[in-house]
Order: sequence, then C-alpha cells, then structure tokens
Amino acid sequence: MTERAYLDWNATAPLRPDARAAILAALDHAGNPSSVHAEGRTARQLIEQARRQVAALVGADPDTIVFTSGATEANAMALSPYWSAKPGQPAITRLLVSAVEHPSVLGGGRFGAGVTHTIAVDSQGVVVRDALRALLAGGPAMVSVMLANNETGVIQPICEIAEIVHETGGLLHVDAVQAPGRIPFNFNDLNADLMTLSGHKIGGPKGTGALIRRSGLHLSDPLIGGGGQERGLRGGTENVAGIAGFGAAAAHITSHIGAEKAHALRLRKRIEAGLRAATPEVIIFGENADRLPNTTSFSHSGLRAETAVIAFDLARVAVSSGAACSSGKVQPSSVLAAMGVDSALARGAIRVSTGHATGDADIDRFLSAWTKLSESLLKGRDVIAA
Amino acid sequence: MTERAYLDWNATAPLRPDARAAILAALDHAGNPSSVHAEGRTARQLIEQARRQVAALVGADPDTIVFTSGATEANAMALSPYWSAKPGQPAITRLLVSAVEHPSVLGGGRFGAGVTHTIAVDSQGVVVRDALRALLAGGPAMVSVMLANNETGVIQPICEIAEIVHETGGLLHVDAVQAPGRIPFNFNDLNADLMTLSGHKIGGPKGTGALIRRSGLHLSDPLIGGGGQERGLRGGTENVAGIAGFGAAAAHITSHIGAEKAHALRLRKRIEAGLRAATPEVIIFGENADRLPNTTSFSHSGLRAETAVIAFDLARVAVSSGAACSSGKVQPSSVLAAMGVDSALARGAIRVSTGHATGDADIDRFLSAWTKLSESLLKGRDVIAA
Repeated sequence: MTERAYLDWNATAPLRPDARAAILAALDHAGNPSSVHAEGRTARQLIEQARRQVAALVGADPDTIVFTSGATEANAMALSPYWSAKPGQPAITRLLVSAVEHPSVLGGGRFGAGVTHTIAVDSQGVVVRDALRALLAGGPAMVSVMLANNETGVIQPICEIAEIVHETGGLLHVDAVQAPGRIPFNFNDLNADLMTLSGHKIGGPKGTGALIRRSGLHLSDPLIGGGGQERGLRGGTENVAGIAGFGAAAAHITSHIGAEKAHALRLRKRIEAGLRAATPEVIIFGENADRLPNTTSFSHSGLRAETAVIAFDLARVAVSSGAACSSGKVQPSSVLAAMGVDSALARGAIRVSTGHATGDADIDRFLSAWTKLSESLLKGRDVIAA
Repeated sequence: MTERAYLDWNATAPLRPDARAAILAALDHAGNPSSVHAEGRTARQLIEQARRQVAALVGADPDTIVFTSGATEANAMALSPYWSAKPGQPAITRLLVSAVEHPSVLGGGRFGAGVTHTIAVDSQGVVVRDALRALLAGGPAMVSVMLANNETGVIQPICEIAEIVHETGGLLHVDAVQAPGRIPFNFNDLNADLMTLSGHKIGGPKGTGALIRRSGLHLSDPLIGGGGQERGLRGGTENVAGIAGFGAAAAHITSHIGAEKAHALRLRKRIEAGLRAATPEVIIFGENADRLPNTTSFSHSGLRAETAVIAFDLARVAVSSGAACSSGKVQPSSVLAAMGVDSALARGAIRVSTGHATGDADIDRFLSAWTKLSESLLKGRDVIAA
C-alpha cells in the first residue's frame, strides 16, 4: 500500500488541475513575451490574462501587479528603502517587522540591520498594537505584518494595523502568502500599500509570486534590473508557463473560496477533536485567535518534533515541524518563541495543514497514526527503529 | 495554411521534448524541497539531479551552481561588490563591462553607476584588449564579458580576457547565455570566476537560470535572502519543475552538441548565401569574427527593422530586430552602436537565429519572404498595408 496523506499544504500545495492545464498549454507556445511577432504576442497575452486573474483574486488593479519568481523575491522587493509614501516625499528609511514573520521578511530585505526593528506579538501570536505605536513614535516607517501565519495560521488585524501605520505617514506591506483559498480578503479593504502573494502556496507552480502595490506608489530601484520587463520594475524574461499556472490557480480560488474555506474548517475541527480525544493534554497554538481554517499547530509535553515528523512520514503522513523553509535544518520556531511558548514545548510543535484536495481518509490516516505513535513519542521511545 | 517559421531562438528557444517530459513529471510531485518527508525528499532529488546535469553541460562542480529565476537574476547576483578574489582579501568595488553586454549586465547590478565602466569593442564587436588593460591599470575590478553576443553571435576571446583580468587580481564574470548547444565550452577551461546560464535559451523553460562560481569564491550578501535555500545564497522555494526541465535540456545538449552545432552551421550558410543572392549589398554584422553557428544579424541600406519584422511576421516568419529584451520598445541597438555601425544601417538590423528543430523548410520560408519583401522594404514602401 503506497497511499499517503499529504498534510503539509502550508509548505507547498499540490498543483491544481486548472493550473496544470494552463502550464501545459503555455509550455507549447514558443515566443518571448517581449518579442513583437505572433509568438511573442501570444506569450504576452498569457501573462496579461494571468495578471487579471491574480488581480481579481484580491480585488486589485492588474496594473499594480508585478510578477516575481516567488514570495521571497516579492518580499525582498517590497522591503526596500526606496519607497515614498507619497510622490515627492522622502523615502522611508526604517523597517518594522512583526516577530512572527517569514524568514524572508525578518531578514529585512534591503533595509540595513540597524534600521530594522521587531514588533512584539502576544501569547496568541497577534501583533501588540501598543508595541507598534511605540515603535512608530520614532517617525514614519515601512511596516511588514503578514495576513496569516504560516506555522500557526493566526490572522493579524491588518485593517487596524494599517490605520496605525498610515496615521504616522508610514507604509504597510502585507505578506498574504498563506491566505488565498483559505479566507476571503481584498487588497483595498485591508488598506495595505504592498502585498506579497505566492503561486505555489495556492496550488500554482513553484517559482511564481507577485508583489501588488497601491496605485501611485513608486519604487525607484528594482531589485532585478534588466530588459525593462514588468514596466521596468522586474527585469528578466517572464516565467510564462508558471505565471499562466499561477493565474489559473487564482481564478479557481476566486470562484470557489466559500466551499474551500468551509471544507478546510470542517477538516480542522476533525483534526483538533481527534487530537484531544487521543491526547487530552495537547496544546494547540493560537487557539484563541482568529486562525486560518486549514492550519493546526500543536505540541505536547514530551514530544520532539524532528522525531515525530519522521515517525509520521514512515506512517505515510506528511506533516512538518516548525517552518518548512529552513532547508531541512532543525531549528526552534521563532514564531512560537515570540509567542512566549516554553522552548521544550515549542520543540515538539507539529504543523498539520490541509487543502481543497484533502479528504476525510487523509484525516483518518493522520489521527490513526497519532493514536498509534503518541504513546511512544511522548515517552521519548525510538519509534523509528521499532 | 498556418505553418510558421520560428527563427528567433536567441530570444527564446522552443521547449525541448526532454525538458517538457521532465517538467510534467516534476509537476506531479507535491512536496517542498526543504521538507524532510518523502514528498520533500523527492523534490530535493529532482533539483540535485538537475544540478548535476547543468554542471555536466559546462564541466563545472555541481556544488558551485546556484539556481536562479533566470539569467537576469544570475547577472544581478554576479554583479555585486561583495565578492573577494581570494578569502580574506577586500571586496572588489569596480565593475568593467564590455560595450556589447546584455542590458542586465550594462546596468551594473549592485555596483553603483559611478564605479561601472565600459570596455570598448572593435568593428567586429570583439573586446579591445588594450582598452581592458587600460581600465585595469586603475586596480583590480570585476570584469563582465559575455561568451557570445545575443544579437550578432560574435564570440569573445574569454581565455585571453581571463588572463588579463587575473593578472591584475580581478574577477571575470561570463554571461554564457547564448552559447550552450551552439558551441562546446568548459567553465574551467575558460578560466572564468563566475558564469551565467539561462534555462529558456537552451530549450528549457522560461523562469530558470544559474550562476556558477569558481570553487572557493565567496559571496557575502545574497540578492534574495530568505529560508536558506541554495546553501544560503538564494532564498525562496525552488522552481522544482522548471529546474528539472532546465536540467533535462542541459543533459540533451551535452550528448548532442556536435550534431546541433553542425546543423546550425549548415543552416547559417544557407541563410547567408540566400541573403546575398537576393540582395548582394546586404551587410552581415560581425562577419569576420568568430560567431555562433546559429545567428545571423544583417542589415541593408534603406531597411527599417521595425517595419521588416512586422512584414516577416505577416509572411509567417518570426525574426527580431535588435535585442528582444526591450519589452516591445523600438530602440537602436547599443551593440551595433558600440561596433561603430552607422545609425541608419543599425536601424535596419534584423536577427535570424535557429535551433535544433529548425528545418530547411523554415529557411526556405525565410528566404522566400526576403526575396518577395526586400524590394518593397528597401524602397521604404508600406508592405504591411499592401
């Protein structure tokens, strides 16, 4: 029996069928989108269709979307001391990032280490607004707060944060990578100035992403210069097939968000009820906060995540420990540390994340594995060699 | 009849069948290469296989290859004042670029405009070695000279240039984007310190590229930081399917370079003989230099490239005018200007570039179109409305 339960959608989502079809169709078109001949114009049309699809996903103006090689590049591009809040105003030179951001944001992008500061979060992982206000008392800044956390699924109060940031003349960047297809949201309603999206986190291909900016916001210095593509904001021949797949995934989500959210929420209730039934002392992180419907981050006294992930893998269940973007390194979760979680408990944190194609059989397999494994795992016994 | 002759391979090459198959296989694997579970490990293996294939293409060590979103990003990463020629030595702070480089190199990357200087080329487009020596008299510099020009196909004497650069303690970056599959070459034999490759220019997918570095060369500050991927040199979830396709294209070329080079040379002889037969006064740029076998850049008194490209397109022949990477803008070729070509003649420059799948029927169609169109085109008549 080779069937497996893939429950690591926050690390990367399997490709959606619509995206796969769009990629295949695009791969068969030769042509550089910058070329003026028919082959080039066809490639250009594929990109512009995808731009409209991604724009529609978040209610943004297609003209404000720059396609990138992924969310990490989009974050690096966003976090640049070259933006002005308004035309003619001086560039923003300080960066404030929430303590639970992705490593690509925590790194500060093109802001120097000396001008990047961390905004505290509470025990549920939500940004402490007074901490943000105190940091903004030092003058206008770029503020980067994610819409939903990759490890815990905790959702930030972006509208309120935007108001605080804008009162002081700052700019708000929102890493929204984990949100599409899980919760409905709108770029303009959130009142963000910049937003990062990922292709592969929403069922498009790996290697695609987008940076969306408020109309009128001006970036003076691209991260990757070159042949003038993306209106001079991002050089390099576009990843046409990847972008087409990203667009198709976005279009599917736009018309199915209600059903996908409800499906995820039903599965999460099953997961969390099952965990509690098997191990009543289980801790679910961010449980009292507004959370993504598809994400459960849990731990238990005595659990060691690196062992547990391997034990689950052998039981044909793919889950993750902490952030998945650390190239296989076992690192304590900076997200949980920022939430004040005891380091021993944080070391046991397992993330289970689902998607539209996750079925009840996957949840059955996960819960069955947990029931079988937890006794040994919590006693520190070597379940792998057993 | 809808058949067309695609003769714009230097802008982008149609996807090779091997690459297409590798992409499709990779798309069906869920899993983030940074994840430790089986799905993640499979994705990781696809990347490492491609790394070995791309390394084999140019005879480099797989460990020295960083995958990027394309050649433009690889160039931006290479052109950084963060490299030292040797460990412990100060970073290199000046950049010298040949006058015929791609826009992504001419822009200077992360070197400031004030420290980037241009190396003159001769009438054939070949770097003037005395000009390089004179610029290097100012001290060690990073020097960026392409292996083969995208517009004219002219090949630079890289080994000789490397010797000149290294004598003064500098570093040599070689943009080799147009060379694989057209001429055999070896990273170590060229004695370059850094080399850029593109996926889509060699029949892999758009959105992939690589930067290769000499063993021991240390980059201190990645262009795109993040989750530690590519040994900390390039953050962001890898474009697994794209990289797999790039690797497959590289592997195919490695075992077919002899046949592909000979095929291209035979077609080029037909193209150039046919052009001369129809229009004896035709000028072929870089004709007396060592050139790629697949590229012909030509012009004729009275020709206007922007009109000619559209006329060819209507005749079902895809060719380009000047560089294709200018987002559809009609710009005079900086390459031809640097070669001292008269601006009126440069304005008529048409590039014809072939690939392994180009057939004699494509050349027939091109030459037939030129024979029919040239009389009108050279008189400035409106062949499009006709």
